[in-house]
Amino acid sequence: MEIRLAKSYGFCFGVKRAIKIAEQTKNSKTLGPLIHNKKEIDRLKNEFKVDLIEDIDKVNKDETIIIRTHGIAKNRLRDLQKKTKNIIDATCPYVTKPQQIVEKMSEEGYSIVIFGDKNHPEIKGVMSYAKDPIVVLNVDELESKKLKEKVATVAQTTRKFEEYQKIINYLMQRCKEVRVFNTICNATFENQDAARELSKEVDIMIVIGGKNSSNTKQLYRICKENCKDSYLIEDENELNRDWFKNKKICGISAGASTPNWIIQKVIDKIREFKV
Amino acid sequence: MEIRLAKSYGFCFGVKRAIKIAEQTKNSKTLGPLIHNKKEIDRLKNEFKVDLIEDIDKVNKDETIIIRTHGIAKNRLRDLQKKTKNIIDATCPYVTKPQQIVEKMSEEGYSIVIFGDKNHPEIKGVMSYAKDPIVVLNVDELESKKLKEKVATVAQTTRKFEEYQKIINYLMQRCKEVRVFNTICNATFENQDAARELSKEVDIMIVIGGKNSSNTKQLYRICKENCKDSYLIEDENELNRDWFKNKKICGISAGASTPNWIIQKVIDKIREFKV
Repeated sequence: MEIRLAKSYGFCFGVKRAIKIAEQTKNSKTLGPLIHNKKEIDRLKNEFKVDLIEDIDKVNKDETIIIRTHGIAKNRLRDLQKKTKNIIDATCPYVTKPQQIVEKMSEEGYSIVIFGDKNHPEIKGVMSYAKDPIVVLNVDELESKKLKEKVATVAQTTRKFEEYQKIINYLMQRCKEVRVFNTICNATFENQDAARELSKEVDIMIVIGGKNSSNTKQLYRICKENCKDSYLIEDENELNRDWFKNKKICGISAGASTPNWIIQKVIDKIREFKV
Repeated sequence: MEIRLAKSYGFCFGVKRAIKIAEQTKNSKTLGPLIHNKKEIDRLKNEFKVDLIEDIDKVNKDETIIIRTHGIAKNRLRDLQKKTKNIIDATCPYVTKPQQIVEKMSEEGYSIVIFGDKNHPEIKGVMSYAKDPIVVLNVDELESKKLKEKVATVAQTTRKFEEYQKIINYLMQRCKEVRVFNTICNATFENQDAARELSKEVDIMIVIGGKNSSNTKQLYRICKENCKDSYLIEDENELNRDWFKNKKICGISAGASTPNWIIQKVIDKIREFKV
């Protein structure tokens, strides 16, 4: 059985980087869960003594605190800095970027329009770097807002590009200058494109991820379109030897919240089948 | 007969301004025709001794030269400055603006994308202020072009806004930063909107302009939709007294190349009818 991994699968760049940082920072705490995967958080705790803390007030003096991928609001960072000098920043660079952009653009006198969800931790962080930011999810919300002639815009990393275009098309009409920063991250779409490509060239396709995860289910749907023998599993225990009979090439993809070690266990188990 | 003028009609701001400048600069020459209306150019020559010159080489030492609404390319301006110190700039401020923008943005290291016709005098002028400008009329033309991560864009003043949006939607996808300057001038659309509004409240509508002029014909079409007694005329000689019988309110609009004095003659003639 030949096993082929999709060109892009599982964790995105920012999450991989944050986990690596956590592994290299033993005896630390993350401020809020590092990522949304309990198994992985347990592993970091058991193997690397990376614990979890929710409340800045409870941070002990000069204890090592890791800032998670979503970033942190400016005032919360200041509060944290009062508690400890040992702060490790695992903010995804794709999130740090819009923070820096809105800070600079605010200084240069632009109105700041953020396309995203104001209740999401990533956007709370970005907002904190802007002067009077306007945060919207669609054009309707923008219409009543006061804007300067010069507007600078950023988008939440996980937003759909087509929706961002609608915001820009509206702003172009209303403002003399619109400075558009494309801060959308393609990770989810890259996983989908890679799964689509791979599923066309294999006999069986295994998609690993939570059965409630919308991005995993989307991957599975895409694979099923191209390869009728596609299966969605949460871990290696769900594999069935019979699936692989008379198959030559097995493709693997995984949802955005699936750690590599779970993927590796699936691969090992398939190899054990010796089909 | 009550006569009502459309809120916006005839010459745009830039053309009106250029004619005023020419009238105030007797014994001068315009470099190329000031505007595209022969009757008006003849009037400037006869009444204000404003002549026409096409070739910079033929400019006499320190003779007074008027730069027309479209602007002038940087190198041609330099050539002209060698010939004379007396240069009067009648470039439309809406054209000067994109010239200044592309010059500044080139200095700041942006790729310059100009949405417009590279053979149009306005765009030739704007191009001359940019470093390696990319001039396109649609997205297809852009696809093969090399672009930096940072792009700044301007549009020819007379382009359609919806077409500019298409260019921006494409660039957003390809570049990290797109700095959109909305340099489209709404004059044509303002004339149309005003004619539409006025034609709804009058009994007869007179549209003055060239019968071959596409913007005049468009005005006439809009008026006809709202007022069945709409007429398109080139000057006062085409007016027919019978049109005005039993009419109380007469609306007036005019194409973008119609001088005010022709409009005035039409109004005077209608008043003479004493309907």
